[in-house]
Amino acid sequence: MTQSKNKKIKYTAFMVSSIDGLIARDSGSGIDWTSKEDSDFYHDKIKNMDVVVVGSNTYKVASGRSWKNAVVLTTKVKLPKKEGKIVFLNPDKTDLKKFLQIKKYKKVAIIGGGKVYNFCLKNKMIDELYLTIEPYVFTKGISMFSGNEFNKYRFELKSVKKLNRNTLLLHYNNLSVS
Amino acid sequence: MTQSKNKKIKYTAFMVSSIDGLIARDSGSGIDWTSKEDSDFYHDKIKNMDVVVVGSNTYKVASGRSWKNAVVLTTKVKLPKKEGKIVFLNPDKTDLKKFLQIKKYKKVAIIGGGKVYNFCLKNKMIDELYLTIEPYVFTKGISMFSGNEFNKYRFELKSVKKLNRNTLLLHYNNLSVS
Repeated sequence: MTQSKNKKIKYTAFMVSSIDGLIARDSGSGIDWTSKEDSDFYHDKIKNMDVVVVGSNTYKVASGRSWKNAVVLTTKVKLPKKEGKIVFLNPDKTDLKKFLQIKKYKKVAIIGGGKVYNFCLKNKMIDELYLTIEPYVFTKGISMFSGNEFNKYRFELKSVKKLNRNTLLLHYNNLSVS
Repeated sequence: MTQSKNKKIKYTAFMVSSIDGLIARDSGSGIDWTSKEDSDFYHDKIKNMDVVVVGSNTYKVASGRSWKNAVVLTTKVKLPKKEGKIVFLNPDKTDLKKFLQIKKYKKVAIIGGGKVYNFCLKNKMIDELYLTIEPYVFTKGISMFSGNEFNKYRFELKSVKKLNRNTLLLHYNNLSVS
């Protein structure tokens, strides 16, 4: 029992959004609007994660300095392709969950963007979620989860913290996975 | 000075969303997924407001029991049309701000949906915002603000409160209006 529990991967999503739940202006834009405190929190957490899972657009604009390993999800490869600490993987061709298990990763960070968050949520690969809310309203942009159908995933609020005067950090557990 | 200050209307938006910033499944759906505590908070606040501004879709699914007066925004009338405590008004034909001033309303509640929130934000008719976040992820649905272009409105976090174990109430001031 303990052994099988120890083998289980823990998936943690890290997100930062506007008040209206948008994570970027468009798929090519970076996160120059987020606070230093969020960036500090993110890098501090990520350096303890075994691997990050990231989409190819987010990969292009993200800083990889705190990553031990990364899996970049892309449709541009058939077989997983390794380049240093980065593996490019096509989730339509290779089972991502199995890949992570074979690599014996325990702590997996899901860092976006919207399509990757949605893919992982759908495939029970988000156990917990850290959401930083920055004090902006964008009115149009990339949604947190780029879903193509309505769902109702239940979460449990674990904690709320102020990262600075105007920035909040929410921590949720996903109750839709067991 | 005091006189002109007293004349100023205060616009307060009330919103309830999922963790991913969605306010409804579609434009015709109600808010059966929100908590009793949010409903209590909303009705308690609304009964002290002079008038609510609401879109025609939200009007159809909302409970009006706490409204003193209401302005329903619709494209289906040319001139404002009064029915009891409700006025149907076409914001393309009638200046909403002037209408509210003439009526001498001081405390105006903006209660959605997404198009109305966006219209009011654009027209400097949101001074403060109460956002309740319920513990769900929907992945697809109606966005808080149905904007057709990216903007960056700055807000200031006034307070955070837990309405129940899993539901948060955020209170923001809009810094983009003066």
